[in-house]
Amino acid sequence: MSVANTVKITDTTLRDAHQSLIATRLRTEDLIPVARQLDKIGFFSVEAWGGATFDSCIRYLNDDPWQRLRDIKAEMKNTKVQMLLRGQNLVGYKHYPDDVVEKFIEAAGRNGVDIFRVFDALNDIRNMEKSMEVVKDIGAHLQGTISYTTSPVHSVAGFIDLAEDLYSKGSDSICIKDMAGLIMPKDAADLVAGIKKRIDIPVNLHSHSTSGIAPMSYQAAIEAGVDILDTAMSPFAMGTSQPATESVVASLIGTERDTGIDLMRLRDAKIKCLVVREKYGALIDPISERIDSDVLIYQLPGGMISNLVSQLKEQDALDKLESVHNEIPKVRKDLGYPPLVTPTSQIVGTQAVLNVLMGGERYSNVTQEVKDYVRGLYGKPPGTIPEEIREKIIDGEKAFEGRPADLLEPVYETMAKEAGEEGLVKKDEDILTYILYPAIAPSFLKGERKAETIPTLSQSRKQDSGNIPSFMEVEVDG
Amino acid sequence: MSVANTVKITDTTLRDAHQSLIATRLRTEDLIPVARQLDKIGFFSVEAWGGATFDSCIRYLNDDPWQRLRDIKAEMKNTKVQMLLRGQNLVGYKHYPDDVVEKFIEAAGRNGVDIFRVFDALNDIRNMEKSMEVVKDIGAHLQGTISYTTSPVHSVAGFIDLAEDLYSKGSDSICIKDMAGLIMPKDAADLVAGIKKRIDIPVNLHSHSTSGIAPMSYQAAIEAGVDILDTAMSPFAMGTSQPATESVVASLIGTERDTGIDLMRLRDAKIKCLVVREKYGALIDPISERIDSDVLIYQLPGGMISNLVSQLKEQDALDKLESVHNEIPKVRKDLGYPPLVTPTSQIVGTQAVLNVLMGGERYSNVTQEVKDYVRGLYGKPPGTIPEEIREKIIDGEKAFEGRPADLLEPVYETMAKEAGEEGLVKKDEDILTYILYPAIAPSFLKGERKAETIPTLSQSRKQDSGNIPSFMEVEVDG
Ligand SMILES: [Co+2]
Ligand SMILES: [Co+2]
Repeated sequence: MSVANTVKITDTTLRDAHQSLIATRLRTEDLIPVARQLDKIGFFSVEAWGGATFDSCIRYLNDDPWQRLRDIKAEMKNTKVQMLLRGQNLVGYKHYPDDVVEKFIEAAGRNGVDIFRVFDALNDIRNMEKSMEVVKDIGAHLQGTISYTTSPVHSVAGFIDLAEDLYSKGSDSICIKDMAGLIMPKDAADLVAGIKKRIDIPVNLHSHSTSGIAPMSYQAAIEAGVDILDTAMSPFAMGTSQPATESVVASLIGTERDTGIDLMRLRDAKIKCLVVREKYGALIDPISERIDSDVLIYQLPGGMISNLVSQLKEQDALDKLESVHNEIPKVRKDLGYPPLVTPTSQIVGTQAVLNVLMGGERYSNVTQEVKDYVRGLYGKPPGTIPEEIREKIIDGEKAFEGRPADLLEPVYETMAKEAGEEGLVKKDEDILTYILYPAIAPSFLKGERKAETIPTLSQSRKQDSGNIPSFMEVEVDG
Repeated sequence: MSVANTVKITDTTLRDAHQSLIATRLRTEDLIPVARQLDKIGFFSVEAWGGATFDSCIRYLNDDPWQRLRDIKAEMKNTKVQMLLRGQNLVGYKHYPDDVVEKFIEAAGRNGVDIFRVFDALNDIRNMEKSMEVVKDIGAHLQGTISYTTSPVHSVAGFIDLAEDLYSKGSDSICIKDMAGLIMPKDAADLVAGIKKRIDIPVNLHSHSTSGIAPMSYQAAIEAGVDILDTAMSPFAMGTSQPATESVVASLIGTERDTGIDLMRLRDAKIKCLVVREKYGALIDPISERIDSDVLIYQLPGGMISNLVSQLKEQDALDKLESVHNEIPKVRKDLGYPPLVTPTSQIVGTQAVLNVLMGGERYSNVTQEVKDYVRGLYGKPPGTIPEEIREKIIDGEKAFEGRPADLLEPVYETMAKEAGEEGLVKKDEDILTYILYPAIAPSFLKGERKAETIPTLSQSRKQDSGNIPSFMEVEVDG
C-alpha cells in the first residue's frame, strides 16, 4: 500500500453535519466531548467552524463563536481545524470591506483555524481574492473552492478552468463543493480526474446525501483519484448531511487507498455522537435524514425545498408549491444560472415566490437583493442576464462590472470605536462579532441573550415541525 | 447509448424493503396501489413474494399469500414478478421433501411468479437442485443465487466457481445476495467482473444499506458491468433496506448505462409509497433507517443485532451484549463459517446466547438446530467443523454427507388428505399453506385469525419498541 495514495478524510460532524440536519444548533459544550474523540482518529482535518455556526452561536445559543473555536482547537492536538469561509461574505450574508476581511481571517487564524475553505456563491474569484490573499499571508492552508452546480453555462471543463484559477491564486488544495448533493458519479470522476491532470494539488470532494447519490459519487471519485473526502460520523450522517465516515473508511480497508483509520476508534467517537444526538433528538426532522428524490427532479438543495414549504405555509399558499418549483429554474435562468447556495439560494427562492404569489407579471415586484444582484453587486453571474429581464429589474441602469468590494469603504476602525463606546468590547474579536452582526451582537456581547431551550421530543411533537426557524433552514452553505 | 448496456432494475419495495424495515407487515391492500404504479416504470422485475411474506401473511395479516400473488400479478402488465425462494426451505425454515418443493413451485408459477431467485443459506447447491430443476421445468426464469459472506473459507474466486455451478444447473441469471450489506466496492467489482468473464448470463447485485456501503458497492458494480441492481423506492429505501431506486436511476442518466427510466414516473410511484409509509409509520424503527456502523465491526446482519438486543433484554442480560457479540464469530467459526441468513443466522445467534448465558463450558447446552446442523441435516458447511466441537455437540455420531432432502419421505399426498378431512382446503394452494405452516394454517384457513392492528404513532411511543415481534426481527432473507 502506497501511503501517498491514501484517501484522507475531513470530518464535518462539528459543522456541516449539524448545520444540515439540525439547523446548526449544537452547543459548544456538546461539541467538545465529540471533538476530543475525533482528534484521536487520524483525520486530515475536522470542519468545525464557519458557515452558519457563527450566526447560530450568537443568535440562538448564547455561545461565543470565538471561544468555541479556541475550545475546539484546544482539543485538536493531532488534527487540523478547518473552517468554511464565504469569501468576501465571511460568515455573514453580504460583502464586507477588505479591512474587515483581513481582520477576520487574522483573528480566525490566531484563534485556531488551520485550513480555510473559501468559496463564492457565484464562483466569482474576485469575491475570493482578498480572503485568499490574507489566508496565504497568515501562513494557513488555503482550500480554493468550486461551488458545484449544473446549468447550460456550467461544465466540467469550466470547473477545471476555475480550479486552475484557484491554484494560480495560491490554493493549497481544491474543494469541489456540491451543496445540493447533485453531482453525478461520472461528473465527479471526470472533474476530479480533470483537475488532477491539470494541477498538482490535493482535490477534495464535498457532497450531501440528500438525493442518495453522494456515496456513489464518492466511490467514483475514489477511483478517479480524489485525495480528500468529506464525511460525517454516522449519527449525524446521510440525508441532507454527508455520507458516513465509518462507511467510507470501511469501504477502503485493505485496498490500496485504505485510509489507515481504525474502525474501533471511530466507534468510540460514534458513541459520543450518539449521546449528543439523543439530546438534540427533537430538533431532527426525520425527513432531513431520508432520501429526497424531489431534489433530483427540481435540482434544488434540500434546505431550499423545505424553506419554500414553510414560506408558503405561512402565506396559506401551499397549493402554489408546484408553481414555485417550476418558477425557480426560470428565475435562476433569468439571473444567469447562479449556483444555489447562501446567499443566492435565498435570492432566487424568494423572488420565485414573489413571481408566483403576486400573480400578474413576473418581476412586477422585485426584492432589493435581486436588484443588487442584477446591478452586479454580488459579482459576475455565471451566465448572461437577458436584456429584457435586466430592463424590467433595474430599468436603464448600468450594471457595475468591477469587484464588488471595491465599492465598500473600510469600516473596521470606526465600528471598533463605536463598539468600544457602547462597552461591547472585552476582547478584540468582539469588534468583529459586532461588525458582522450589528443587530444581534450588542445584546449578545452584553450578556443579555439566552440560549434557546432544546425542545424535548414530546414538545416537538405538539408543534407541527415548528421548532426549526425557517430563516435558518434556508442556509445552504454546502 | 447501447441498449444492451443498460443497467436494469429489480425493485424490492413489495418484498425485501418492508421485510427489512417493518418486519414484512405491509398488507396486500396497500401493496396493490403501489404495484400499479411500479408496473408503469419499466423495471426488469419487481420482487414481490417469498422470503418472509408468506409467513407474515398468514401469521400476522390474515392475508392469503396466494391471493396476494394473484392480485399483484394482475397489476403487472409490463413487469415480471419475482420471488425469493429459500431453496429446499421454500418459504419456511426447514427442508421440505421434494414432492412439496415441486408442488409449491408449480403453484407459485401458476399463480404469477415469473422469476425465481433461489438461494441456500450454506450455498450448498444440493439444497437448491430440486427447486432449480422444477423452475426450469415450468419454464420460468431461474436466478441462481450466491449467499454472499466473508470468512477465511470464502473468497471471490470461490464465489465465481459457485456461479459457474449455478450456471451449469440452468440458471438464467446470477444473483449476488449480500444480506448483511457487507460487500465492499472492490469485492463487488471483482466478483461481478469475474463472473461475467466466466459465464455469459446477466449478473444481479443485491445488497442492503445497513452499513452505508451498498451505494458505493453498487457504483463499483456498475463500472464492473453489473446487469441488474436491486433497489427500493425512496420511502422504503436505505438503512436495513436497499439503496433508493430514484438515486440509482438518476445517477446513470445520460451515461452509457442509463436505465432509460423516467424520474417523473418514479415520482408518481414514490407518492403512492409515501401514503403507505404514513399508514405504517409507527412500525418503522428509526434505527433501522440509519447507518449501523456496528455492522462493519461485528459483520452481522442488522436484523440479527436488534434481535440479540431483544433476546437479552427479555432475559434481563443486556449487560452480556458485548460478550454475545464476541461469541458469535466464534460459534460461526466452530460451525464452519456459514453465511448468516435465515435459518443459519438464528442457529448461530441463539447458540451464542446460550454459550454466554449458561456460563460454564461453551456448548454445555446445545440447541436441537445446532445438533442437526452438525449432523449435516442442513447441508455441507462451507468450512470444516473442528473435531473437538463436533465431539462436544454430537458425540461419536457420524454426520450425514448426502443431500439432506434425500432423508425426507414424500408428504404431499398424506397431508393433502389430512387437510381435506379437516375441511381446510378451498383451493389446491391451501394444501401447501397447510404443509408449510401446519400450526397456523388451520386457524388461518378456517378464517379464525385476525389481522394485527396497525399501531398508531402515539401507541408505539408508549411501548419501548415492543411493537415488532422479536421472532420476525431475526428474519434475514437478504
Ligand atoms: Co455542505
Ligand atoms: Co435482501
